[in-house]
Amino acid sequence: MKETIKVEWLNDLSFEADVDGHKVYMDSSLEHGGKNVGPRPKPLMMVALAGCTGMDVAAILNKMKENVESFTLEVEGDVSEDHPKRFEGMKVIYRFKGKGISRKNVEKAVDLSINKYCGVSANYSKAFDIVHEIIIEE
Amino acid sequence: MKETIKVEWLNDLSFEADVDGHKVYMDSSLEHGGKNVGPRPKPLMMVALAGCTGMDVAAILNKMKENVESFTLEVEGDVSEDHPKRFEGMKVIYRFKGKGISRKNVEKAVDLSINKYCGVSANYSKAFDIVHEIIIEE
Repeated sequence: MKETIKVEWLNDLSFEADVDGHKVYMDSSLEHGGKNVGPRPKPLMMVALAGCTGMDVAAILNKMKENVESFTLEVEGDVSEDHPKRFEGMKVIYRFKGKGISRKNVEKAVDLSINKYCGVSANYSKAFDIVHEIIIEE
Repeated sequence: MKETIKVEWLNDLSFEADVDGHKVYMDSSLEHGGKNVGPRPKPLMMVALAGCTGMDVAAILNKMKENVESFTLEVEGDVSEDHPKRFEGMKVIYRFKGKGISRKNVEKAVDLSINKYCGVSANYSKAFDIVHEIIIEE
């Protein structure tokens, strides 16, 4: 299957992406010659990972009838000091709130996502290690 | 260096990312249980690559005093048929318009980005091949 996106240069270091009709803006920071009208490109790699595994986990926990009130993902990325400044590791923190959520079910959902369904994770794990942590609050 | 992003589940398969204060939405398609309020996560991997190399190339050509009137990047990704549905290759098409743009300078700028500066490209090339094409129109 083919996926295609288009990105247009606006001015200076600012770009507008079109993804199936959705606009995503990117820009550099003020100290690097941009105007900060959008995020930097590299953190979008972390957004893609969080969205990919987040959708898997939300869908699986819904099927499991878990009562999830809130669900957030934080991704921490280690960026190399030398050029090209690339990720050398990522940590995904899955944080849930809800009454009586089963840790075993959450662990199963996260494991299925990371090891079976999430293509972003499969791609990234060829380049660096991805670790995770699960936090459940009542 | 550490980078951090946060992604919040909104409902169904829809998520809101916060990247240094910038919001990025993600959702699944209607046929996969989403409401299409944002792009799918996987194409954001292509957006990150286009933004990363696009910023490098825009900055280098500006330093080279090339008269770039328009600059677009298209990324085509080959997605595997089997699970996890991951990228097996990407092609970046760099398309420029402007009077008297030097192909040699553009090739140099793209080469510097892909092989020296762009961390996204450095990460992805551990997982799959990235090829490119340069199109220059007067």
